[in-house]
Amino acid sequence: MQETASRPSLVLPRLARQGDQAEPGFRAVAEETAVALTYGRSTHAVMMASPIALEDLGLGFSLTEGLIGSPAEIISLGIVPRPAGIEVQMEVAEACASALARRRRRLAGPLGCGLCGIESLEEAGRDLPSVTAGTTLPHTEIGAAMEALSAAQALHRETRAVHAAGFWQPGQGLALLREDVGRHNALDKLAGALARQGRSAGAGALLLTSRVSVEMVQKAAMIGAPLLVAVSAPTALAVRVAEGCGITLIALARGKACEIFTHPNRVC
Amino acid sequence: MQETASRPSLVLPRLARQGDQAEPGFRAVAEETAVALTYGRSTHAVMMASPIALEDLGLGFSLTEGLIGSPAEIISLGIVPRPAGIEVQMEVAEACASALARRRRRLAGPLGCGLCGIESLEEAGRDLPSVTAGTTLPHTEIGAAMEALSAAQALHRETRAVHAAGFWQPGQGLALLREDVGRHNALDKLAGALARQGRSAGAGALLLTSRVSVEMVQKAAMIGAPLLVAVSAPTALAVRVAEGCGITLIALARGKACEIFTHPNRVC
Repeated sequence: MQETASRPSLVLPRLARQGDQAEPGFRAVAEETAVALTYGRSTHAVMMASPIALEDLGLGFSLTEGLIGSPAEIISLGIVPRPAGIEVQMEVAEACASALARRRRRLAGPLGCGLCGIESLEEAGRDLPSVTAGTTLPHTEIGAAMEALSAAQALHRETRAVHAAGFWQPGQGLALLREDVGRHNALDKLAGALARQGRSAGAGALLLTSRVSVEMVQKAAMIGAPLLVAVSAPTALAVRVAEGCGITLIALARGKACEIFTHPNRVC
Repeated sequence: MQETASRPSLVLPRLARQGDQAEPGFRAVAEETAVALTYGRSTHAVMMASPIALEDLGLGFSLTEGLIGSPAEIISLGIVPRPAGIEVQMEVAEACASALARRRRRLAGPLGCGLCGIESLEEAGRDLPSVTAGTTLPHTEIGAAMEALSAAQALHRETRAVHAAGFWQPGQGLALLREDVGRHNALDKLAGALARQGRSAGAGALLLTSRVSVEMVQKAAMIGAPLLVAVSAPTALAVRVAEGCGITLIALARGKACEIFTHPNRVC
């Protein structure tokens, strides 16, 4: 039943009910496709994703999961349709390849889940770099940023079923946006797009349409993002990790209101 | 930074901003904890979860992922706090243990992610049983069911950051509800709770506060649930899989309105 999808949305028939009324019609829904990220032809992860911006996903995931230290370490990246999904085929520099192979051998046996190849409790709390960028965000721009993010969610407007991650440059506006059925993927795609354009995540704020669980903070820290602004609420662990690694975590950002959980000094 | 949490929520300080006003105060946020599911002391999966109803999670995950065929195949299940999280320690019947060990050996090497131990594109589209239960749901009960679900989300009311899965028995009402920071976990906890109470998922409707991605339909099929009702939109792949395995998929269920994507004959 799995098949390769190339479009991020599809129009499907459905029966709309409103009380006693039932009316046949159509609705645009988001597509999702199994995507395999491979390094040197070995599968590192398989995830369900929107089949767009997969080059960004491959590069971004490699960076936010710490599999590479810089974009230059990916020597080639190809998108290969397969019968059961899409392969993001990456070749990495020799040093990275050895590190990945060691990691694979170490993890061989029991399997990880949900946490991208984690196989023990100890690994779930991974070491993160300190985020030290001094970038500030005027409080008057927080509402404007989330409004701009919402207005730019083209796929979500069509399907009501995808998340977005955006990059806001203080004083300049929304610089980038990526969408995906998965919130982690949306953030990874944004991280990859930033890297491919040579932009530093340290110079602005990451905007999220989702809740903030700990993985979102971990990924932000890995790319040195000092500010994380989300529509929904954070978890307690996400707050502790943001506090620890120096990220300003702003959540429940709606209209003129927001709540700042950590390092409020970056909001001016 | 990871630590064992035992409560599902925590009150944290934060700065509330409303336009030019900034006011210090507190907010209840959801806790999330790394949870390892182990079988015969081997880790099968590590996930972030709300640290409640973990017996339900262990049993439910085992059923919805097809690791066991019936609850009786789990001989013992213990909740063991560890420094870095919580272990759900399960011992399974001899036949299951061999099957799990074979699966582990087969998958040794590259690692899975997001799809609970999947390591190739082909595995992402797993075979599912046909759901044949003839249970019907009066259309007049759909709105009432979602209202009852919403009213019973105690942890979400407190934290605004967790999902719920509920079980609705036509003509009788909301029989069960489980909450979790992860929507997959909420459904797994519900599946486990149903099994522990000896209830058949075939006799009612699963209610979800989330979007419907393909894994939610796969999990529903594994426990023979004929009706899936969700607040948000489905993905195209979720619709195709529900169509294929015989599940009635009802989404965008809000107030008196809803949209039926597959097998509308079960809505009367």
